[in-house]
Amino acid sequence: MKFIDLRSDTVTEPTQNMRQAMFTAEVGDDVYGDDPTVIALEEYAAKLVNKEAALFVPSGTFGNQLALFTHCTRGNEVILGDDCHIVVHEVAASSVIAGVQLRTLTSNKGELDPKQIQARIRKEDEDIHYPSTGLICIENAHSCGRVIPLCTMEKIYNLAKQKEVPVHLDGARLFNAAAYLDVDAKEITKYCDTVMFCMSKALCAPIGSILAGDKKFIAKARKKRKVLGGGLRQVGILAAAGLVALHEMIPQLKIDHENAILLGEELSKIPGISVNSEDTHINMVFFDMSATGFSTDKLVEKFYNRGIKINGEEDGLMRFVTHNWISKEDIKFIITSMKEVLAGK
Amino acid sequence: MKFIDLRSDTVTEPTQNMRQAMFTAEVGDDVYGDDPTVIALEEYAAKLVNKEAALFVPSGTFGNQLALFTHCTRGNEVILGDDCHIVVHEVAASSVIAGVQLRTLTSNKGELDPKQIQARIRKEDEDIHYPSTGLICIENAHSCGRVIPLCTMEKIYNLAKQKEVPVHLDGARLFNAAAYLDVDAKEITKYCDTVMFCMSKALCAPIGSILAGDKKFIAKARKKRKVLGGGLRQVGILAAAGLVALHEMIPQLKIDHENAILLGEELSKIPGISVNSEDTHINMVFFDMSATGFSTDKLVEKFYNRGIKINGEEDGLMRFVTHNWISKEDIKFIITSMKEVLAGK
Amino acid sequence: MKFIDLRSDTVTEPTQNMRQAMFTAEVGDDVYGDDPTVIALEEYAAKLVNKEAALFVPSGTFGNQLALFTHCTRGNEVILGDDCHIVVHEVAASSVIAGVQLRTLTSNKGELDPKQIQARIRKEDEDIHYPSTGLICIENAHSCGRVIPLCTMEKIYNLAKQKEVPVHLDGARLFNAAAYLDVDAKEITKYCDTVMFCMSKALCAPIGSILAGDKKFIAKARKKRKVLGGGLRQVGILAAAGLVALHEMIPQLKIDHENAILLGEELSKIPGISVNSEDTHINMVFFDMSATGFSTDKLVEKFYNRGIKINGEEDGLMRFVTHNWISKEDIKFIITSMKEVLAGK
Amino acid sequence: MKFIDLRSDTVTEPTQNMRQAMFTAEVGDDVYGDDPTVIALEEYAAKLVNKEAALFVPSGTFGNQLALFTHCTRGNEVILGDDCHIVVHEVAASSVIAGVQLRTLTSNKGELDPKQIQARIRKEDEDIHYPSTGLICIENAHSCGRVIPLCTMEKIYNLAKQKEVPVHLDGARLFNAAAYLDVDAKEITKYCDTVMFCMSKALCAPIGSILAGDKKFIAKARKKRKVLGGGLRQVGILAAAGLVALHEMIPQLKIDHENAILLGEELSKIPGISVNSEDTHINMVFFDMSATGFSTDKLVEKFYNRGIKINGEEDGLMRFVTHNWISKEDIKFIITSMKEVLAGK
Repeated sequence: MKFIDLRSDTVTEPTQNMRQAMFTAEVGDDVYGDDPTVIALEEYAAKLVNKEAALFVPSGTFGNQLALFTHCTRGNEVILGDDCHIVVHEVAASSVIAGVQLRTLTSNKGELDPKQIQARIRKEDEDIHYPSTGLICIENAHSCGRVIPLCTMEKIYNLAKQKEVPVHLDGARLFNAAAYLDVDAKEITKYCDTVMFCMSKALCAPIGSILAGDKKFIAKARKKRKVLGGGLRQVGILAAAGLVALHEMIPQLKIDHENAILLGEELSKIPGISVNSEDTHINMVFFDMSATGFSTDKLVEKFYNRGIKINGEEDGLMRFVTHNWISKEDIKFIITSMKEVLAGK
Repeated sequence: MKFIDLRSDTVTEPTQNMRQAMFTAEVGDDVYGDDPTVIALEEYAAKLVNKEAALFVPSGTFGNQLALFTHCTRGNEVILGDDCHIVVHEVAASSVIAGVQLRTLTSNKGELDPKQIQARIRKEDEDIHYPSTGLICIENAHSCGRVIPLCTMEKIYNLAKQKEVPVHLDGARLFNAAAYLDVDAKEITKYCDTVMFCMSKALCAPIGSILAGDKKFIAKARKKRKVLGGGLRQVGILAAAGLVALHEMIPQLKIDHENAILLGEELSKIPGISVNSEDTHINMVFFDMSATGFSTDKLVEKFYNRGIKINGEEDGLMRFVTHNWISKEDIKFIITSMKEVLAGK
Repeated sequence: MKFIDLRSDTVTEPTQNMRQAMFTAEVGDDVYGDDPTVIALEEYAAKLVNKEAALFVPSGTFGNQLALFTHCTRGNEVILGDDCHIVVHEVAASSVIAGVQLRTLTSNKGELDPKQIQARIRKEDEDIHYPSTGLICIENAHSCGRVIPLCTMEKIYNLAKQKEVPVHLDGARLFNAAAYLDVDAKEITKYCDTVMFCMSKALCAPIGSILAGDKKFIAKARKKRKVLGGGLRQVGILAAAGLVALHEMIPQLKIDHENAILLGEELSKIPGISVNSEDTHINMVFFDMSATGFSTDKLVEKFYNRGIKINGEEDGLMRFVTHNWISKEDIKFIITSMKEVLAGK
Repeated sequence: MKFIDLRSDTVTEPTQNMRQAMFTAEVGDDVYGDDPTVIALEEYAAKLVNKEAALFVPSGTFGNQLALFTHCTRGNEVILGDDCHIVVHEVAASSVIAGVQLRTLTSNKGELDPKQIQARIRKEDEDIHYPSTGLICIENAHSCGRVIPLCTMEKIYNLAKQKEVPVHLDGARLFNAAAYLDVDAKEITKYCDTVMFCMSKALCAPIGSILAGDKKFIAKARKKRKVLGGGLRQVGILAAAGLVALHEMIPQLKIDHENAILLGEELSKIPGISVNSEDTHINMVFFDMSATGFSTDKLVEKFYNRGIKINGEEDGLMRFVTHNWISKEDIKFIITSMKEVLAGK
């Protein structure tokens, strides 16, 4: 049975074009710098975000943690939002790999207050009790489903430059943010020194993310990627799929976003379901169904039996994610299923 | 010249009785467990806070960081206030020694919201993206000058017990908190699993803090203290002063607190000086003198020339700290000096 | 131009069957445990080495370092040979990821003396100055080209069991060792608790290694793999190639070994070239050509111009590695080239 | 009962002059840089070893580990002997604090082979698989009781300079080495960039060691000492004893060494006791008494009952340590006791 999988956009399988590209990919040993397809991908990826250089990494978490590890000296501080992916969903890796101290701020739906950031930046030579701020991290699109306005990013970036602190962008869903803002990705990445973005997730590559920055940073990151066991061999296989993702799949994101809005609208018509429609910036629909009185655990089970995979609630909210393999037809089926299940059918 | 030193209570010199006790102290090699004075101190200290065992450590930072290192496994999370000493004034040591990820909360003048703590506790077996919460830290008295109410500590401790997360109390100024609350220190430490308190600071010992907890914890901490280079030899010298601090100096704290209130009242009478009198719980007076238009840097210099040492402003506030070596006479002199300096004399 | 690449067996490109398998691989999101091909690979891999469970990891270094990270508590000691891959070629990752102290022994061409190991095992409760030995590592086949005798492995394993210290086998070239010893891989892995082996290298998979051990260990390693950014998504693509590697490529290793012997014999006939023929256990030929008086740097260049890639000397020795893409014809061409280049043609 | 304590020179109690000096010591808050006695000690200590600057640290382990932490970047390698104190007796702290990878060499009774060191020095830009060597450590006097010849130190230092790798000297018993070599300590420390020496141990201070090096290094170490919780307050108390140790106790070391030789000579006259007399360079007598057939555990007990504290055997050897509180009378009593105990009295 082919499931409708709403759990995340990480579940996206590669497209046929990706499979074809992997089948014929020209490869080499990337630790020796010999893989032409990886080289092509890294060059293309760097251009897309207007940075000097880029590096293939096996996952988004790998790329973010490598950024922390490369920007920071152990014992530095990193300023970031309390609800961002690095803090909440990367298994506290920042304390293991980079060895940094997090200074988390309460975010306003993913958005950080530049003044609060400014108040926390410090330098170790100011006071014997102080470490140095090594990095500021922003996440855009944020995993709460919202896109952070460019003007906020600009303010943060400007104050960071003034204080000589680098800014890293967790752009796991960078192209979703660009699609929502209707700008080129470069318009977002101009407000960061380094960016990580994923070719898996909504872009459908099976494996792979990119870390981009200036040449010096990427040279350092390449070495540290080896420390972390991320120096791989015939990576061209995965890079070939990544190139298809970047060349072909970006237009799909707007369709995913439309589908999310559609799904949200239809869900909100069902009595007892309250959709956070103002947060539906990208491909994620968050909703509260507690007023239906229906158990979300039971919903997971009932949906599964109908061929729909969903996650259970987190912090009182359900999340449905649209992507390349969710069609408008599927959305109709999901809505019908929801109605029927709630009706006890 | 003998200075009036208002910078901190860390500047307190040992009393004559402490010097006498150090002179005659019976000592041994504490790494071999042979020092009778250390043993006596550790037993007495444990009793004072009603814990099974205690351990001498060379500083408050050492004791707090040893607590994190002993309670937590590397890669755990620690929940604590964004403005506490461990976060702000311990050089990000938590990322170096314990290797933990901080989950900082915005505090209300040092007080944490139990509900916010509860929402952040997690266990690694709940989700592959989650680390485990290894520890909750509370600071009381808080370095903002306030004492956290026992009912808040109780709520936090109860929810921590329910979730099986240990609670560590940074009680650098534990006995100041007890003096303010007019309770025995045990009434505070019953809401924590481990506590660090300092015998230096207002209690005037030259060097030394205590980490207390159950026997198993202290045995583990003793080993880890050796890892950190804190296994010392004839520690009885310092323990002798520590015993005097604990036996003789606790009553002094109420006098320091009275003096702080007096100093605050007198300062607040000076035009342009605004004292945070509602925060004067212990021996610290915080005030804003920006309305005087007088440069705080210049004040530091002018006071120094008159024999008074003070720190410059931090986050827009000045802090004067009273202690054993600040008399009521000194306070008069400080007030007179302030008036004269502001008057341009 | 298609090069003859003697630099390493890491340069091996995937076979056509692997490309076909990747093209048609059934995949899923492996972080959710949904990828059927990874599950099939992990089950098959575990069986091959007679362990309860196995885990896909993106590289050999990743697998070894994950083993250290999973077996050890930070601050443990690891006993291993001074010339093994973990010490020499993994960028000191043991100090970053696992945070362990290495106790390196001088090896006899990769072979460790069980008595020396025994003398270094220690437990932290024996002495306050002692850490605990967390792991013993053996490498087989060793990267010096030799295979460690099973009797040595057995002795080390038995003493480790007696002292309750786990043994990890760096079996990057495990199947080469098995081919040389003419035994099933299980006969080697019965003398270790965990083993890492590579499907890349001589088995030709583009990317991927396996870490195997008991179920409890692998469950713990799976979590820690996520910490290190190694939780990937549609890994079935790579697992499909890995399955081909394990099903089809193992018989090739004996051919590689024969080719290495042949290459060594032919090289040794050339005046001035001295081959370590007693070390040619697997697919690596080490030789000293200093007596030819010919610059090895120049040889690298001259060979490159003839379509042969080789590395420069390391510690006075050249290394030529045979593999699936080096035929007997190629060996003839290599020998002819060597003779001609040395003759100044 | 006053014991004769042969377990170590760490057991030495402070002299009466030290107690007097501590009683009257002028002190200040050393975190503010206000303690005049610490400043005096640090200046005097720096001069003694001809370095630009020095720093008080609470223990020898603290000083050594701070040296590693300050010299090295996490992930560096440190080259040192397999039997040195840092490897064997500092609880693997190098893996926790500095986060470095040890490259241990087999020493010849504490002496390292410069050629073996040279072969292990490497730089991370040479090869993507390589870390950088961050430090070479020498121990002199070595804890095996021997003093390393100056010519060996000179060779190691020269090659280290050539390769631009710093050298740290673990000189816990530096002045013992100087006494044995009959040179000024400066003649030893000219072959290192930084040195740690203890004022406790044979020099009898209750607590305290010194880390010395150039100004830039010491400034960096002062900050990192704070990270490790070693920023203390009225340290002048301990510094006062340290100054007495350095001014008055150095001449005592030659007497301790004579006593060790005497003790060794007398022990070697007892049938069945074999003294490593060629290793008795400083205040330590190592001997094998297995030929007596007498249980060393029983000896520990019997000696204790006679008022003599000794440690049990380690690696088949007993160690008796002479120091300021062991007189020639005591040695007679020890020898008589040994004879009587072995005779079953």
